[in-house]
Amino acid sequence: MDLTARIRSGQGEFVLFAITPPRQSTSAARLPEIAQATIDRLSGLDIDGLVLYDIDDESSRNPDERPFPFSPTVDPADYRDQHLASWQTPVIVYRAVGKYERDGLETWISGQDPERTLTVLVGAASSGTSAPVSLADAQAMRAELNPDLLLGGVAIPERHSRRDNEHLRLIAKQEAGCRYFVTQVVYDLNAAKNLVSDYRYECEARGLSPVPIVFTFSVCGSMKTLEFLRWLGVDVPRWIENDLRHATNPLAASLEQAATTAVELIDYCRRLGVPFGLNVESVSIRREEIEASVELTAQLLAHLKA
Amino acid sequence: MDLTARIRSGQGEFVLFAITPPRQSTSAARLPEIAQATIDRLSGLDIDGLVLYDIDDESSRNPDERPFPFSPTVDPADYRDQHLASWQTPVIVYRAVGKYERDGLETWISGQDPERTLTVLVGAASSGTSAPVSLADAQAMRAELNPDLLLGGVAIPERHSRRDNEHLRLIAKQEAGCRYFVTQVVYDLNAAKNLVSDYRYECEARGLSPVPIVFTFSVCGSMKTLEFLRWLGVDVPRWIENDLRHATNPLAASLEQAATTAVELIDYCRRLGVPFGLNVESVSIRREEIEASVELTAQLLAHLKA
Repeated sequence: MDLTARIRSGQGEFVLFAITPPRQSTSAARLPEIAQATIDRLSGLDIDGLVLYDIDDESSRNPDERPFPFSPTVDPADYRDQHLASWQTPVIVYRAVGKYERDGLETWISGQDPERTLTVLVGAASSGTSAPVSLADAQAMRAELNPDLLLGGVAIPERHSRRDNEHLRLIAKQEAGCRYFVTQVVYDLNAAKNLVSDYRYECEARGLSPVPIVFTFSVCGSMKTLEFLRWLGVDVPRWIENDLRHATNPLAASLEQAATTAVELIDYCRRLGVPFGLNVESVSIRREEIEASVELTAQLLAHLKA
Repeated sequence: MDLTARIRSGQGEFVLFAITPPRQSTSAARLPEIAQATIDRLSGLDIDGLVLYDIDDESSRNPDERPFPFSPTVDPADYRDQHLASWQTPVIVYRAVGKYERDGLETWISGQDPERTLTVLVGAASSGTSAPVSLADAQAMRAELNPDLLLGGVAIPERHSRRDNEHLRLIAKQEAGCRYFVTQVVYDLNAAKNLVSDYRYECEARGLSPVPIVFTFSVCGSMKTLEFLRWLGVDVPRWIENDLRHATNPLAASLEQAATTAVELIDYCRRLGVPFGLNVESVSIRREEIEASVELTAQLLAHLKA
């Protein structure tokens, strides 16, 4: 059963790999080469789908200096159309709705084949910014223009740790049409379990079926990457930081730690009866971190389909 | 190698069972029966030691109403001498130093055989109380009067979550003579790992050998027990609370969860090279919770010695 069919029937147990499109400053000649390198890297893996992020300048969200400077990236929809057309599985294309004019977003939503494309609509990074299209506008657009296009939402366990209401936000998004959720990178297992647990029991209390929650994992091979994860709002427990700081091979330690966290979440979700997916993202663009991400994906596929 | 030899050589991998002596209101005739029931229950287990808690009225520490009313308990040293004399392994006798006069504590410390008795000295629950003997006084007494008596200290991972300095407190206690630490009940795995990790790397930076950290586990068969754990200052993650609230058999769910947490800490400590022990305590006095504690102990022994 392919990714769209699984999500339509409320089933999980799928594995995704997430890519950030290249920077806009990349030369036109390099773009197809980069895309082909990605396809080659992933071709040996039986993944269920690809995720294309849409990077917005999030400096309005966080006053601290960004560890890696922000650099605009190629539009994920364009990148997919122009360079990833040969990719076989469905693709989840993120849309940071605050970046777009109404017309452009409408045209894109209308034009998608819901068997090949899914989308995650992301609201503006800070409520202080004014954008032509709000998240609610964009959700309504999808419902009107292309109701079969599978809509996903963002889930942030860390927000649940601070405000205890992320499960209610998920349910509100579900009522606005979301059929799955994708978390930011998970390093804090407790926070993720707390969110899954509260979501599951709230669904039960309201007579709703839980939809798949896709947990995102990444490897982290350096303190700089860890610092960037924290800047993005990821709670990285101190013991993981210490392990990374003192490991002779931090990347291997990180890979093992991410796999362990994923396996625990798999067991937990299965026990609770909450459908789930797994998503691996490479936060850094260093070759060895990308290769370790591919290795993590292979391990998760092997575990999930064992 | 017995418990005292292990601790003297800085080795862990031992299992303890913790008991709170009966209430002072218990009839004199019942005391030996209760003690014998404990011995019978534990006789089938190859545990390395017994822990006898010394309960102080901790209402000065927490303004919230105590879920189970405080009731003074028999002095652990008296209970051991009078009713547990036939018990074979060494016993760790807690002393809540704030409860005692100087003379009484001196006599007790001087009179102990360091091959049969260990002690954990616990400071007053709140710094607002004035007691005849402070924790530092009691530590000095032990060093002077019975330097071979193995001294332990209390370790609180939750305090580390809030103040980030519990590892420094452990090292200060180590410098005051502590040769092992015993945690309060662990439900928050991350907090425990953070403490172990920070302690280990701080020891390394100072050229100290880490001493055994004894992790305490308990089962929790009811929301009332969970409420009591929280009153005592234990951080019980929300997902565990939800699991317990919704489980058809909360006690079985709790037993499984405690065993899982213990196994993860065992793996983590072994990987980090920090010596550790395991301690199982029954927080409640309900028969089925005590029996589940014994079962948990049996599982941990089987895992540790496998």
